[in-house]
Amino acid sequence: QGILERLDAGEIVIGDGGFVFALEKRGYVKAGPWTPEATVEHPEAVRQLHREFLRAGANVLQTFTFYASEDKLENRGNYVAEKISCQKVNEAACDIAREVANEGDALVAGGVSQTPSYLSCKDKTEVKAAFRQQLDVFVKKNVDFLIAEYFEHVEEAVWAVEVLKESGKPVAATMCIGPEGDMHGVSPGQCAVQLVKAGASIVGVNCHFDPETSLETVRLMKEGLQAAKLKAHLMSQPLAFHTPDCGKQGFIDLPEFPFGLEPRILTRWDIQKYARKAYDLGIRFIGGCCGFEPYHTRAIAEELAPERGFLPEASEKHGSWGDNLSMHTKPWVRARARKEYWENLKPASGRPYCPSMSKPDGWGVTKGAKELMQQKEATTEQQLKELFQKKK
Amino acid sequence: QGILERLDAGEIVIGDGGFVFALEKRGYVKAGPWTPEATVEHPEAVRQLHREFLRAGANVLQTFTFYASEDKLENRGNYVAEKISCQKVNEAACDIAREVANEGDALVAGGVSQTPSYLSCKDKTEVKAAFRQQLDVFVKKNVDFLIAEYFEHVEEAVWAVEVLKESGKPVAATMCIGPEGDMHGVSPGQCAVQLVKAGASIVGVNCHFDPETSLETVRLMKEGLQAAKLKAHLMSQPLAFHTPDCGKQGFIDLPEFPFGLEPRILTRWDIQKYARKAYDLGIRFIGGCCGFEPYHTRAIAEELAPERGFLPEASEKHGSWGDNLSMHTKPWVRARARKEYWENLKPASGRPYCPSMSKPDGWGVTKGAKELMQQKEATTEQQLKELFQKKK
Amino acid sequence: QGILERLDAGEIVIGDGGFVFALEKRGYVKAGPWTPEATVEHPEAVRQLHREFLRAGANVLQTFTFYASEDKLENRGNYVAEKISCQKVNEAACDIAREVANEGDALVAGGVSQTPSYLSCKDKTEVKAAFRQQLDVFVKKNVDFLIAEYFEHVEEAVWAVEVLKESGKPVAATMCIGPEGDMHGVSPGQCAVQLVKAGASIVGVNCHFDPETSLETVRLMKEGLQAAKLKAHLMSQPLAFHTPDCGKQGFIDLPEFPFGLEPRILTRWDIQKYARKAYDLGIRFIGGCCGFEPYHTRAIAEELAPERGFLPEASEKHGSWGDNLSMHTKPWVRARARKEYWENLKPASGRPYCPSMSKPDGWGVTKGAKELMQQKEATTEQQLKELFQKKK
Amino acid sequence: QGILERLDAGEIVIGDGGFVFALEKRGYVKAGPWTPEATVEHPEAVRQLHREFLRAGANVLQTFTFYASEDKLENRGNYVAEKISCQKVNEAACDIAREVANEGDALVAGGVSQTPSYLSCKDKTEVKAAFRQQLDVFVKKNVDFLIAEYFEHVEEAVWAVEVLKESGKPVAATMCIGPEGDMHGVSPGQCAVQLVKAGASIVGVNCHFDPETSLETVRLMKEGLQAAKLKAHLMSQPLAFHTPDCGKQGFIDLPEFPFGLEPRILTRWDIQKYARKAYDLGIRFIGGCCGFEPYHTRAIAEELAPERGFLPEASEKHGSWGDNLSMHTKPWVRARARKEYWENLKPASGRPYCPSMSKPDGWGVTKGAKELMQQKEATTEQQLKELFQKKK
Repeated sequence: QGILERLDAGEIVIGDGGFVFALEKRGYVKAGPWTPEATVEHPEAVRQLHREFLRAGANVLQTFTFYASEDKLENRGNYVAEKISCQKVNEAACDIAREVANEGDALVAGGVSQTPSYLSCKDKTEVKAAFRQQLDVFVKKNVDFLIAEYFEHVEEAVWAVEVLKESGKPVAATMCIGPEGDMHGVSPGQCAVQLVKAGASIVGVNCHFDPETSLETVRLMKEGLQAAKLKAHLMSQPLAFHTPDCGKQGFIDLPEFPFGLEPRILTRWDIQKYARKAYDLGIRFIGGCCGFEPYHTRAIAEELAPERGFLPEASEKHGSWGDNLSMHTKPWVRARARKEYWENLKPASGRPYCPSMSKPDGWGVTKGAKELMQQKEATTEQQLKELFQKKK
Repeated sequence: QGILERLDAGEIVIGDGGFVFALEKRGYVKAGPWTPEATVEHPEAVRQLHREFLRAGANVLQTFTFYASEDKLENRGNYVAEKISCQKVNEAACDIAREVANEGDALVAGGVSQTPSYLSCKDKTEVKAAFRQQLDVFVKKNVDFLIAEYFEHVEEAVWAVEVLKESGKPVAATMCIGPEGDMHGVSPGQCAVQLVKAGASIVGVNCHFDPETSLETVRLMKEGLQAAKLKAHLMSQPLAFHTPDCGKQGFIDLPEFPFGLEPRILTRWDIQKYARKAYDLGIRFIGGCCGFEPYHTRAIAEELAPERGFLPEASEKHGSWGDNLSMHTKPWVRARARKEYWENLKPASGRPYCPSMSKPDGWGVTKGAKELMQQKEATTEQQLKELFQKKK
Repeated sequence: QGILERLDAGEIVIGDGGFVFALEKRGYVKAGPWTPEATVEHPEAVRQLHREFLRAGANVLQTFTFYASEDKLENRGNYVAEKISCQKVNEAACDIAREVANEGDALVAGGVSQTPSYLSCKDKTEVKAAFRQQLDVFVKKNVDFLIAEYFEHVEEAVWAVEVLKESGKPVAATMCIGPEGDMHGVSPGQCAVQLVKAGASIVGVNCHFDPETSLETVRLMKEGLQAAKLKAHLMSQPLAFHTPDCGKQGFIDLPEFPFGLEPRILTRWDIQKYARKAYDLGIRFIGGCCGFEPYHTRAIAEELAPERGFLPEASEKHGSWGDNLSMHTKPWVRARARKEYWENLKPASGRPYCPSMSKPDGWGVTKGAKELMQQKEATTEQQLKELFQKKK
Repeated sequence: QGILERLDAGEIVIGDGGFVFALEKRGYVKAGPWTPEATVEHPEAVRQLHREFLRAGANVLQTFTFYASEDKLENRGNYVAEKISCQKVNEAACDIAREVANEGDALVAGGVSQTPSYLSCKDKTEVKAAFRQQLDVFVKKNVDFLIAEYFEHVEEAVWAVEVLKESGKPVAATMCIGPEGDMHGVSPGQCAVQLVKAGASIVGVNCHFDPETSLETVRLMKEGLQAAKLKAHLMSQPLAFHTPDCGKQGFIDLPEFPFGLEPRILTRWDIQKYARKAYDLGIRFIGGCCGFEPYHTRAIAEELAPERGFLPEASEKHGSWGDNLSMHTKPWVRARARKEYWENLKPASGRPYCPSMSKPDGWGVTKGAKELMQQKEATTEQQLKELFQKKK
């Protein structure tokens, strides 16, 4: 059954987790570029991660093609010893995802994301060409549906959806925005409306913010769609990092990004709260993005097991709400084998010299910022920063 | 070259990281029992994790035989659908470790750890028999050396060393104790002395405490050996969790154990500080235990690259001290591409409703506690707890 | 010179600090009732506190008549051994304030605050009668001007201003509201407009929120006045407690109120930031409320000394930005004798088991709440709470 | 009845609180010098503070003669406009204390503290002369007993006790040390022994550390006395600031000293825990030092009211364990009118950008440090600091 058949039937569809962060920690992706050449260099590592998400309950395996547009691979991928073509990376990603999907009951989704071309103000034709190049592979490899994800500007997301729709396959679209809207100031509600009008059947958010913030954004999208009398399925794939303190552009501007985020990692119990809240909000495609490890995905599947009627395979190695501790030799550890314990735990950081919140860097790349960035007189970063600071 | 040849020559030997915690998050190990039946059930997952540690720079691959004694597998392993024999688990563990070790320049170490038999007061003969059963496999599979690790009582650790020495292979021994010593009150210095006298060539600590605490314990072991005019190589494999607030029995008694430890996870920079401090203390076998993911192991290898003269394979995907951020589009993210930034960062938890420290549960299973536990009148846990509280 | 002459001339007028909290700590006011019978019982203690605020730079001494309306003293004052009449309390307050004001260059302001009569839904005539009773004393004792302060409902504040205006004296009016507006949902801008239309020459906020929140509220008041093309002087008298985490009804709903607020107390440096920000926003009547001790008031006077051209008397015992440490015997303490040190200090709490934020209790007494409270069927608090929770 | 009669009879004697910190906040004492010229300049302010401590339950009023030795007043007091003689300051202090003591049932204690003469290595004769000059006033004014307090070196404290004993009056002696002992490395137990041998009838600690640390120090003193088979009454007057993170020389080395200590201020409930713990340890002279305001002193008296059989006068304005909130209009505030609420509250700081612990500055002025300081080659602080850092 396809993605839309499942969602139309009221099923809960569980997405997978974050590849770039998980594979960075495993040694296969470089932070900064975040490009997915591992599909060619180390397919076994990519395959293993897909398998873990499948076991954890994911119904959708996204091809590991994040930032795999040709312009991105060229600009940033030059550290890769021998040049690996965009096509090869995308094809390998499709093959691996399909191989693992066939081990279970999962769909394969081909994914595109925002491009350097758009950010450097290339025109619509050029940006669309980049998406089409990836789409050609997805069509050839016959993925089950398509996801346009991680867009900071709805304009580019709409272009992506338009290209992906050419395939005739269902299209989902998620933006990496918060409740304040996209980088040009378009509100979440308006973003959702534009994406659905462009042809997306599923809309929502991914990355950049924690579950609480992301769900608020999806709520605003839902309101926007209702006001416009449009129908679409809702989707959320937030970070597995707590980010109550971040600004408009999300966790990238937090001083801890990307190498000091550990204290912010969500526990499995935080994820269960997220899954429940997402479900209550009417979201039926529930997954995760950066920071989501397989056990986080499993936590979604466990929280929603009553609604779905089954547990994921990986729950063989997990007791609901810690009940695997009920046989521990220490009585006070056995006493942790219950829901109220973990639900109410306020976990300490063990870091008494660290604060609980940070002030985000940067200023948020608003429309005005983009204009300023193009101004010839802002030749150095310092000048640029000063210009912005004057503006504030 | 064997482990002792390397250490005698002054080489730095890097250990691997923590299997049970990493594989629990990946869905292959059950928290609570923490047993390694995955070597038989899902060898590809175990193989992949070994490979990641190898790429990260590990020179030693420990067989995934933690808690793989027959008594442990029997007592706790009854949740495993079809019974998997102790021998099969241990053999598979050896085969997988050797296969991956051959992909690089690593040694295979067979490992034994504390047994339920000892904790339930079985006699020396019975406890030694449990170790010998595992040792038989290690000898048959011809591992390069042996590690007796995760012992809370030096008495049992000495028995383990005595058994392992029967093989004629080098033996390392680490205890999961802090500066206060073992559960019977034997000081770290005395523990080290007894282990070396029993035949261990390498001694130190693993698990239960964070690097800072663990290094203090090794320092006390070193002092004890010096006072006794004994020679041995030093070894440390601490947690990758901050635990300034835990009691005598380490992180198990922290209320966050084992499902709420996320805010305590060490960053790669914390690990670099650990590696440097361990090196300065004279430790040359430097690895990690629970919480150590491949990127933590890589951080050890990167910190000590100047001394060793080379970087690990996985550093292809990592810039020293964040320099992979030097090409980021945002100037304030580029500004993070330097050592002082990450060295001085005090990472926020994003958890403003959580404290920075916890009060540990429990009372520490001292000798007196063990005695009390055996008293017939302490029929229920509650009575037991009350008895202890009166004692305090 | 009167208050309006000073403000019209562009002078900065410094208000005094919080009497009920300071005198509670000194042992003369009871938390809970917070009534000012100390003016009769212990005039020397009230006099001394006035004197300290005067020395600290206050230009206005408010009569200690907070909650001194007859209905309040009757309802709550029954713990006072022998009944002290409302008139006696108010008269003594005027006498003491005038006595101290004459020791320097300060004005005496008679103050009224919200009444139990209003909260229990008495009609306008009755509520106004309560204010008029206090006003009679202020007129007889010839205070310099009048302040209606600590109102949660603009309706009652307007009634107070109308009564006070009968005296012909200048009237200032401050509400204890945040940016969300009054308890009936009237916005700060609208509140300001109604108060000015009722005759207030000075408007602003006092109590309930920290300086940052309070200044945002005054900013909204200023915008409201500008939009309505009304003119008035602005005034702020916030808490000296950090309250980033409180809800609509301010610090009363924080779990720490009123006996655990210590970790939230502002430093003198926090106050200097407040004074500067208030000044920059165009506020010229700058004082404090609960938590403000004399040294906090002095900090306002010191921050604005460059604009005012003089320091307060109490600065004889204080060096600007810590320069009294420049003679300390320890070099590292001497190193603290500079502005950047104190400006950038992030003071630790010394409380590693405590969080940095709290979740406020209660629900905020909105209009709906008041209605519900009057409903006969809500006979117990528990029922009431449940009703509200259903509403949310 | 004199101090010894009371203590010998098993009475609890409550000390007063901290004058220099309280009067600094009120505008009468300058931080840095911390000298008590206010007794002459503003007697009404000193009188009022005495009165508040008396009302709060203090049985001992200490003359405000801290740092009132001639050498101190000369060295540091030069900011005082017209020179005030040492004698005048001490005489005024005695008169004020006696006047207030007569308003209740309190004893007057004349106090001396460590001298600049000792710190600059003057000899015994000269140091003793400084104490004798103050003692002459105490004798003339006929104080009830004497306290030698705030000594970092037991050698100087012994000299002080020897001088004070010349008067024939009872002598108490407290050192401002922690469990590590005095600045020359003499243990708390040894300090106590030397002080009792010198003639002190009461020994203990004051200032520099929080109650928890201070009580540990007194416990060690008690052990020392028991081991030496000496008898003396015990006394504690700690800070009202939490200082779990400070080094050997106490809160002076914390980066927050003295102008950013607010988040560390103890609540009244913290004080009640202190009073109980002090009592259980056998201490019967229980008071406070810097940071102790009248309401802290009252908290001691309220906690020990069951043992003493009465409440202090200021409890007229205070309900035990918050019961004055039982009439509050809001149900959730009424719910705070109980012991368990306040006992278990973990108060938030409202400071999410601040840590919970600090690293202390400085290196602790040990004997070696003093020697180094006198070395001619350490001409600049920077050189001095470097010298010490090399030493470490």
